[in-house]
Amino acid sequence: MPDIRDLRGVVPYLPTPLTAEGAVDEAALIRLCDHLIAEGVHGLTPLGSTGEFAYLDIAAKERVVAATVAAARGRVPVIAGVAATTIRDGVAQARRWAALGADGILAVLEAYFPVPDAGVVEYFTAIADGTDLPVTLYTNPNFQRSDLSLDAIDRLSHHPNILFVKDASTNTGRLLSILNRTEGRVGVFAASSHITAAVMLIGGRGWLAGPSCLIPRQSVELFRLCEAGEWAAAMELQRDLWAVNQVFARFNLAGAVKAGLRLQGFDCGDPAPPQPALDPAQVEAVRKALAGVGAL
Amino acid sequence: MPDIRDLRGVVPYLPTPLTAEGAVDEAALIRLCDHLIAEGVHGLTPLGSTGEFAYLDIAAKERVVAATVAAARGRVPVIAGVAATTIRDGVAQARRWAALGADGILAVLEAYFPVPDAGVVEYFTAIADGTDLPVTLYTNPNFQRSDLSLDAIDRLSHHPNILFVKDASTNTGRLLSILNRTEGRVGVFAASSHITAAVMLIGGRGWLAGPSCLIPRQSVELFRLCEAGEWAAAMELQRDLWAVNQVFARFNLAGAVKAGLRLQGFDCGDPAPPQPALDPAQVEAVRKALAGVGAL
Amino acid sequence: MPDIRDLRGVVPYLPTPLTAEGAVDEAALIRLCDHLIAEGVHGLTPLGSTGEFAYLDIAAKERVVAATVAAARGRVPVIAGVAATTIRDGVAQARRWAALGADGILAVLEAYFPVPDAGVVEYFTAIADGTDLPVTLYTNPNFQRSDLSLDAIDRLSHHPNILFVKDASTNTGRLLSILNRTEGRVGVFAASSHITAAVMLIGGRGWLAGPSCLIPRQSVELFRLCEAGEWAAAMELQRDLWAVNQVFARFNLAGAVKAGLRLQGFDCGDPAPPQPALDPAQVEAVRKALAGVGAL
Amino acid sequence: MPDIRDLRGVVPYLPTPLTAEGAVDEAALIRLCDHLIAEGVHGLTPLGSTGEFAYLDIAAKERVVAATVAAARGRVPVIAGVAATTIRDGVAQARRWAALGADGILAVLEAYFPVPDAGVVEYFTAIADGTDLPVTLYTNPNFQRSDLSLDAIDRLSHHPNILFVKDASTNTGRLLSILNRTEGRVGVFAASSHITAAVMLIGGRGWLAGPSCLIPRQSVELFRLCEAGEWAAAMELQRDLWAVNQVFARFNLAGAVKAGLRLQGFDCGDPAPPQPALDPAQVEAVRKALAGVGAL
Repeated sequence: MPDIRDLRGVVPYLPTPLTAEGAVDEAALIRLCDHLIAEGVHGLTPLGSTGEFAYLDIAAKERVVAATVAAARGRVPVIAGVAATTIRDGVAQARRWAALGADGILAVLEAYFPVPDAGVVEYFTAIADGTDLPVTLYTNPNFQRSDLSLDAIDRLSHHPNILFVKDASTNTGRLLSILNRTEGRVGVFAASSHITAAVMLIGGRGWLAGPSCLIPRQSVELFRLCEAGEWAAAMELQRDLWAVNQVFARFNLAGAVKAGLRLQGFDCGDPAPPQPALDPAQVEAVRKALAGVGAL
Repeated sequence: MPDIRDLRGVVPYLPTPLTAEGAVDEAALIRLCDHLIAEGVHGLTPLGSTGEFAYLDIAAKERVVAATVAAARGRVPVIAGVAATTIRDGVAQARRWAALGADGILAVLEAYFPVPDAGVVEYFTAIADGTDLPVTLYTNPNFQRSDLSLDAIDRLSHHPNILFVKDASTNTGRLLSILNRTEGRVGVFAASSHITAAVMLIGGRGWLAGPSCLIPRQSVELFRLCEAGEWAAAMELQRDLWAVNQVFARFNLAGAVKAGLRLQGFDCGDPAPPQPALDPAQVEAVRKALAGVGAL
Repeated sequence: MPDIRDLRGVVPYLPTPLTAEGAVDEAALIRLCDHLIAEGVHGLTPLGSTGEFAYLDIAAKERVVAATVAAARGRVPVIAGVAATTIRDGVAQARRWAALGADGILAVLEAYFPVPDAGVVEYFTAIADGTDLPVTLYTNPNFQRSDLSLDAIDRLSHHPNILFVKDASTNTGRLLSILNRTEGRVGVFAASSHITAAVMLIGGRGWLAGPSCLIPRQSVELFRLCEAGEWAAAMELQRDLWAVNQVFARFNLAGAVKAGLRLQGFDCGDPAPPQPALDPAQVEAVRKALAGVGAL
Repeated sequence: MPDIRDLRGVVPYLPTPLTAEGAVDEAALIRLCDHLIAEGVHGLTPLGSTGEFAYLDIAAKERVVAATVAAARGRVPVIAGVAATTIRDGVAQARRWAALGADGILAVLEAYFPVPDAGVVEYFTAIADGTDLPVTLYTNPNFQRSDLSLDAIDRLSHHPNILFVKDASTNTGRLLSILNRTEGRVGVFAASSHITAAVMLIGGRGWLAGPSCLIPRQSVELFRLCEAGEWAAAMELQRDLWAVNQVFARFNLAGAVKAGLRLQGFDCGDPAPPQPALDPAQVEAVRKALAGVGAL
């Protein structure tokens, strides 16, 4: 496994397979991880948005991280999600994931009341100080109640353990602003809300995204074309793959990924209630999108 | 203690006193509850927004509920906050609070991904089914990522255990819409974002609010004047008390309540980091607001 | 006609009757004004939101103001809407309305790019300086792209010609904040988004609102009850009238007022395209709401 | 001049030069247009956002279009902005610009009350029907109160006169969604909120943007590199130019363009009050950004 500090490529945001009773289905998770690694992905991220981190208690989260680490068997890095409202909880999660063998931390600040920049910086700094693992800052202004300002990212980029940023806004310009501002101190990964080929063009390292669970081979090929500078071919593939992203943006993200995986023979259950499972018309839209890119 | 189904009046949203190490300071909580009951409040609500429910783990929440029940000693009802993203967790909390002796449940739906109305109804129904305790629906569109539509409230109002709604929007007209729509099936309580005298005028039962921790006597007097139909006197007092609400709306709510209580000799510590404590200028604004209504 | 500086009561926001060709239908406007004055309203406001000010050119606006002044015949004050993005245009409109015989100005700042507070104050000050007419500040954060901060209102309240504020947010507490902050320097009028009885309770002077065109008699009675301090009777009536406001809030406001007036025999045409007229189901909802309060 | 239907390249959004008295300064506008054409731009757009269309009356707009047409002298196409709240006004503007010699229409739907999709489609269709000129749909969800849904764009794309879309959201993925959905029926132009090289990569035709007034030569060079597929060189230049966009995004857009042009010797006055001119610190930021790309 290459040094995670050199990480580039496709890193799927894993769903959290759940049984009908709501327990983590570790066997399904391990089977999915094996499949994704076989398809060539460059890392695995449990407990991102797609992984329903906001719907799991700490015991379930532990099982998810442990199972992903076990499945990866050192073949690709595991970047495990930490999400908390308090510094105390965030640091505790990071230490636990390190102890369980994670290779990196994906850090989210959850919030109820708004947090000023100083508090945001304090939170992520504490997590980066809390273990030796490299940290990826993750901001998703669509769903999270705090956001990372350019100033905060700039300040955090000087921390030796803070290596990457994943920005899940739809604002691709912001990624270039981050790159320009941090002058190489952090690497940028795209989300499924960005056109990944465009992010590669502007200097991105790859993407951390839920849909890659369903189109791992195609995603890896897109990444390869971008890395090779074969932009025309990359865009031809990208145009097709974008249809998948569009479908997923319309539905509950975890629900859409789980529906698609079920169609592919990787049953991961349904999202935790009261999140709805996709209805038949939505499942059909997912089926069509996947069929359209040869992923069924 | 009167039947909670007849509840009317002032029900402070309690802060959660924390030690410097982040532990629940039960002694401070009990002392505060004793004080508030002595001042005449009609109930106590631990684990509302002011109580930083989003910043506490389940063990801390248990200590808060247990301490509040112990402090109340049956003198006033304890309506304990349940907040969860999943039905499973919400029901488990409700049952635990019932077992600990709470007299009612204040129910919040937390969310990361948006939840359609059917899921919202399913969540609150499951909590209302989960124990015999009366349930107060709580919606705070300023801070929570799901909201209760009028349709959802209407459907929930038919449940025999769902008795009250607390709406913390700033939209007072919505309260009258709820009252008109539910035709007496749920009672409405105001929040600190509403003018409480106005909510009493339109048919409200009182208020569940953080600032009442700091002005309990004045709040009880305002409630009495409204109940007596002495609207001119009520408004005279209300105008003064509104200045307190305004100050609290400008700052972190938990921080402002804790800062004010410290000034009154009830040290409850600071909000859980990375939430900031009030800075000296903000503390001074709180001091002035409290002094202005004779609460220092 | 009493001094407009003492204005209190019900001031309907008039629709702008339009022919099928899009011309101002002055005859319909005059007939409506006569009807409203006969029903007892205390003033008339052409060119508010309901009057589709944003859909009329300057020539049409002139016809509206002239017709309203002619209809009023000095029986009630005419407070004519000024809405502009530039100071130059705003002042020119105010002067024209003054020359046409308006008794007061309702001033709106339209915006495309955000305007800082200093610019907001400059705009309204220039309008108040531009004529001798008393000015009512009007802010509707739901539809307008600029808002009036408390600071801006406070500064403007010291101008001798700025007498009133109409706030069309749904935030009733903001009205009390304005009253507390301006200490009697400006009077506050409610909008249809507020419970008018509640605004009267906290010290309001009445309301400027579109739905009053359809329920003028009932509105005047509600105002009378509030003025008399007969709050229980006022609320009984208010509860019924609120159903009308709720219906109007769901539809295009101009469309709903015009649909209702057509049902009452005052055909004012349809909203200017591409604004849609109400569809049959919406018209039926308006019909039911009006019938429910005896306004058909 | 090539057929406007084949338009590709850099089309500056022109400011509207204003004298201290608020009149259109046609001489300054003509001098600026001459300069931009000399620098190689591929078209000119008067009365876009940067042109303060929302701050000009119809007579001023006419002078702007006439002066731009006169300045262009057929060397590059003039795509003149139409912005209205009503169909009647929108069509009238389009016809007037056609009569004045414009080569194309940039169409904006202004709104006060929300407009459903059917009304949006009706508005743009009427404008496209109103003249023979090709129409560019323009949507800027940051400042305009209506937006163009993908469905509306798809329906409009079948109109023979609707050729292009300029989307000024920050959501670059939306542009690819438009391209995929309309299957070649409309061409896409970027705005200054997008990374233009990224939009070129995904199949864009160029950009319509205010900052290009200040960096015309650099913009044309960036366009050339993109067209040549020299993506590495394009991105090197793009990274530098992005700093200019970032500065402009922070300030009033018209104010920033006018401040920069004054620094370059093309005095276009200040934005129409109450829009503020840039303060000295903001001017200095503009100066630094321009100097950084050799544009001073």
